[in-house]
Amino acid sequence: MELLTINNVWMMICTALVFFMHLGFAFLEIGLTRQKNTINILFKNIFIITVGLLLYCFVGFNLMYPGFSESSLGIFGFAGFGLTSPITDAGTLDLMYNEGYTYWTDFLFQGMFAATAATIVSGAVAERMKILPFMIFTLLYVGLVYPIAGSWKWGGGFLDQLTTPFYDFAGSTLVHSVGGWAALVAVCLLGPRIGKFKNGKIQAIPGHNIPLATAGVLILWLGWFGFNGGSVLSADPTLTSLTLVTTCLAAAAGGVFSAIVSTILYKNLDLTMFLNGILGGLVGITAGADQMSPTDAIAIGAIAGVIIVFAVSLIDKLKLDDPVGAIAVHLFCGIWGTLAVGIFGNLASVDQFISQLIGVGSYAVFCLVTSFVIIYVLKVTMGIRVSEEEELEGLDVHEHGMDAYPDFRLNEH
Amino acid sequence: MELLTINNVWMMICTALVFFMHLGFAFLEIGLTRQKNTINILFKNIFIITVGLLLYCFVGFNLMYPGFSESSLGIFGFAGFGLTSPITDAGTLDLMYNEGYTYWTDFLFQGMFAATAATIVSGAVAERMKILPFMIFTLLYVGLVYPIAGSWKWGGGFLDQLTTPFYDFAGSTLVHSVGGWAALVAVCLLGPRIGKFKNGKIQAIPGHNIPLATAGVLILWLGWFGFNGGSVLSADPTLTSLTLVTTCLAAAAGGVFSAIVSTILYKNLDLTMFLNGILGGLVGITAGADQMSPTDAIAIGAIAGVIIVFAVSLIDKLKLDDPVGAIAVHLFCGIWGTLAVGIFGNLASVDQFISQLIGVGSYAVFCLVTSFVIIYVLKVTMGIRVSEEEELEGLDVHEHGMDAYPDFRLNEH
Amino acid sequence: MELLTINNVWMMICTALVFFMHLGFAFLEIGLTRQKNTINILFKNIFIITVGLLLYCFVGFNLMYPGFSESSLGIFGFAGFGLTSPITDAGTLDLMYNEGYTYWTDFLFQGMFAATAATIVSGAVAERMKILPFMIFTLLYVGLVYPIAGSWKWGGGFLDQLTTPFYDFAGSTLVHSVGGWAALVAVCLLGPRIGKFKNGKIQAIPGHNIPLATAGVLILWLGWFGFNGGSVLSADPTLTSLTLVTTCLAAAAGGVFSAIVSTILYKNLDLTMFLNGILGGLVGITAGADQMSPTDAIAIGAIAGVIIVFAVSLIDKLKLDDPVGAIAVHLFCGIWGTLAVGIFGNLASVDQFISQLIGVGSYAVFCLVTSFVIIYVLKVTMGIRVSEEEELEGLDVHEHGMDAYPDFRLNEH
Repeated sequence: MELLTINNVWMMICTALVFFMHLGFAFLEIGLTRQKNTINILFKNIFIITVGLLLYCFVGFNLMYPGFSESSLGIFGFAGFGLTSPITDAGTLDLMYNEGYTYWTDFLFQGMFAATAATIVSGAVAERMKILPFMIFTLLYVGLVYPIAGSWKWGGGFLDQLTTPFYDFAGSTLVHSVGGWAALVAVCLLGPRIGKFKNGKIQAIPGHNIPLATAGVLILWLGWFGFNGGSVLSADPTLTSLTLVTTCLAAAAGGVFSAIVSTILYKNLDLTMFLNGILGGLVGITAGADQMSPTDAIAIGAIAGVIIVFAVSLIDKLKLDDPVGAIAVHLFCGIWGTLAVGIFGNLASVDQFISQLIGVGSYAVFCLVTSFVIIYVLKVTMGIRVSEEEELEGLDVHEHGMDAYPDFRLNEH
Repeated sequence: MELLTINNVWMMICTALVFFMHLGFAFLEIGLTRQKNTINILFKNIFIITVGLLLYCFVGFNLMYPGFSESSLGIFGFAGFGLTSPITDAGTLDLMYNEGYTYWTDFLFQGMFAATAATIVSGAVAERMKILPFMIFTLLYVGLVYPIAGSWKWGGGFLDQLTTPFYDFAGSTLVHSVGGWAALVAVCLLGPRIGKFKNGKIQAIPGHNIPLATAGVLILWLGWFGFNGGSVLSADPTLTSLTLVTTCLAAAAGGVFSAIVSTILYKNLDLTMFLNGILGGLVGITAGADQMSPTDAIAIGAIAGVIIVFAVSLIDKLKLDDPVGAIAVHLFCGIWGTLAVGIFGNLASVDQFISQLIGVGSYAVFCLVTSFVIIYVLKVTMGIRVSEEEELEGLDVHEHGMDAYPDFRLNEH
Repeated sequence: MELLTINNVWMMICTALVFFMHLGFAFLEIGLTRQKNTINILFKNIFIITVGLLLYCFVGFNLMYPGFSESSLGIFGFAGFGLTSPITDAGTLDLMYNEGYTYWTDFLFQGMFAATAATIVSGAVAERMKILPFMIFTLLYVGLVYPIAGSWKWGGGFLDQLTTPFYDFAGSTLVHSVGGWAALVAVCLLGPRIGKFKNGKIQAIPGHNIPLATAGVLILWLGWFGFNGGSVLSADPTLTSLTLVTTCLAAAAGGVFSAIVSTILYKNLDLTMFLNGILGGLVGITAGADQMSPTDAIAIGAIAGVIIVFAVSLIDKLKLDDPVGAIAVHLFCGIWGTLAVGIFGNLASVDQFISQLIGVGSYAVFCLVTSFVIIYVLKVTMGIRVSEEEELEGLDVHEHGMDAYPDFRLNEH
């Protein structure tokens, strides 16, 4: 009973920290984009966390942890609508649900994860996607795609049943790549913002509030204490504390190496690259945070930091416009972190690496197909891109009738 | 010993989260008001949390938990000035204080609650109330009114002694309505800001920093993990985790339904209404967060969200000027949440509903009378409203000699 | 096992809170300085936390907790590069490392502290120090000076071996004064910002974002729950909860007394002084937070608040330019808090007071000498001050090629 209570306390705290990541994402996204689209991005973020939780209650949780039947092949299962808490004969909540925490904690922790995938997409499509199709996409992607994809591993599905099971501790693939693939598809179908590529040359479109973007990254790092620390699914002292150490060291190494490489390449102490390097390190360590030594963690983070610099450049060269660097951070480093489980740490082996490749490939196919179908159908039916006029004047005024800083004035004294 | 330690850890974390709500309130209030009054609002918030804690140490804690004597009728008691920790014969802190946590934790958790009531008023009177009378009001309301009112239920007073005891789990009435009633009185006695009602027409006065207002709401939601989760007064796994689930689902439902209704009515995706709907859902679930099923929580939150939209409109029509929507959120949804305990969940019954009505009525009378007396006396003696010149030029320059963003410049590159 | 798990959970949470203090410092520093140097300050803060953690992993932890040999005199020891976790015969992490938490938690908690010292300096040298020498200084001060200094007490060194051991619970001296002394040296060697002292008169140079500075203080206060609460090094219910109470009461008293004194002296409700008073109270209570009664804590905080007002004035009169008040807060109140352990609370005695003086003096000598050598060498070799042109135009454009709010616009509607 004591141990259950402790585990449950730890999991509730981690749940709170993952919830708080939504402020981190919101700050990061508005900070790196133009002021005229700020309300729109905030609205999307608030929409995602509220609707995401309700959807996860309604269908997501039972899609993700369906208790697969034999005939399902571990691909699709559904345990019914709504939440059904396990009850003892005495009518109280059955605490033997599992060792670590209660049914309620389990739902809420997983629910906080669910909304993250859509948030990743939100950043990538910022400043030009219509709000209504984005909301519809969110409903389908958070409500159906994310939990079905998640069930393949965390729900005990086919990737968990491989001879050498696919391993993704806290979601480099299940959360970050799932969001990242959809971000890639959305960016391709949307096209770049007006002015991003002029006569074949890449134009920087600076954001409007770098302090808030920086705060966003520090809040996300804080949230990752819960994202990875809670993925231990208990308060096991060794695993939780090792996980926090590897998480923080990878974040630090990601930032530092991203800053070093970008400074060498561009002769500029670039804060944004430093910040994205931290996020890259965090995403990279996520798949194996409980399996790595501190040295492994630093190596994985450092490589993630280097990847960020080249990925951002590559995405630019491919004429893809990702205003906040979501694809570099969540997709590239998500893949890297997933593969790194087969290279570094306790699980490193050829067999594991192959399982990791199978996992990465399975999610790539599923997410590319589902997000393409959803967004393409939205594009040809209702359209996904705002009008040129709206894009130039900003989505805030057109979609929300509101400015982000309506009464802001300069001091004249 | 282990269980006490766990309970105490949980309660300390919840205390920290409730403390953090003060940043949430500060961001929300400055974000939704004009730039020229920002320093004033921040000063009030910092005043409330610091002075509130000291007052609660000096008199509040012992007014709120007096250990009522028979003759007191459960209306007023006082256990003496300052803190007196229970000591064992060996001279160490008596840990048998109660099962859940230590005397120190109890004081600090309750102390963090105390300041909240005044903060609610701070938002409602923003942009036009003199700072000195506001400070005097805070001293009296946080130091005396709040703890006496609180003693009636949480201190074991007469509302706790009804045949069917009045129920208010975490303070829909004891905290939120207590603040809300005073906000209503203050707004009536102060009158609207210049320009709010022109020729009988309502004029929107936009705030100056919606990103910070949004951050404020997310921080408040985070803080509510501690506000409601800590009100279990132990780390009981079932109750704490159920409470977090109902809290989050009500917040989500409140936001979504507020957004839906306001979009239907006003044809506008209004972020502010979305945010206030979340707060309404949080206030609404607070009275019965430990007694509801997820479905009940969604219903209570959804109705709170609808109430917000109509309450904001009603307050406008009554020519009351509440710059941040504090009355709609804290008073209307506080009443709703308190009554909902008699309608939904484990305690639902006609008797309970009547007890809830008695509770709501008792607090209404006490808070309306005390806040009216305090504010009215301040009004006729020293005046509560700043001069027209000060209101137009802003309280920051007049009362604090300072701007909120004194060196802010626009980028000219 | 249960108790270890609880202790470890508490320590991990405190670690997260101390990490979050870096956002508090960042907000405070940018808020109180001019907009044109914002990116530079953010870059430094991100540099400090990332590089600080890696350095602490590489050398710092083993310099600070070297397991002193007899011959070392408790002045210098080094247990080797990198982290070496204690392993049982079975190959798992040895949980008997100590009662309170795991080796990993110990490293991470202490690592979060390490970066703080450099952050204090960052604020003091803001707006005029070149970034490269600052980074070199940080490497040496965080990597070598801080952990060696820390080993003298927390590592069991000579100050811990005095007949009446020097006492510094959570770092009024070991963290705050260590940063404060270096800040003093740096400010002396750098000289004031252009325009700070004109014709012998002190000119206020207002910051650019007081809301973020205020948020920074509230975030720092929140972080202090972990900074002091975690310094109990276990979840002991009595000590942790008493520590949180003394911490919060000292913060509140510091703020209130600072506000009262500054209002009397300057006839102005000065928010900045209120905020710095809170920080002064927090720094002041830190050395003895676990040894004080609530009344002691209020007294220590109140005196710290008064000290702040006069220290800020004194530093101005000495023609030292400390943009964020770091010297007043961290050095003056750090010394005060350390001495207060000999005056108030359980340890008060003449012997203790003398030991506290010895401790303060030892750190003064070591930190003044080391920081002078480092910064002076940097000054005569590469120079530490930016060019006049760069100072006038801002470090952001010159060192980072970037503005903090590049797309910020005023609403023209």
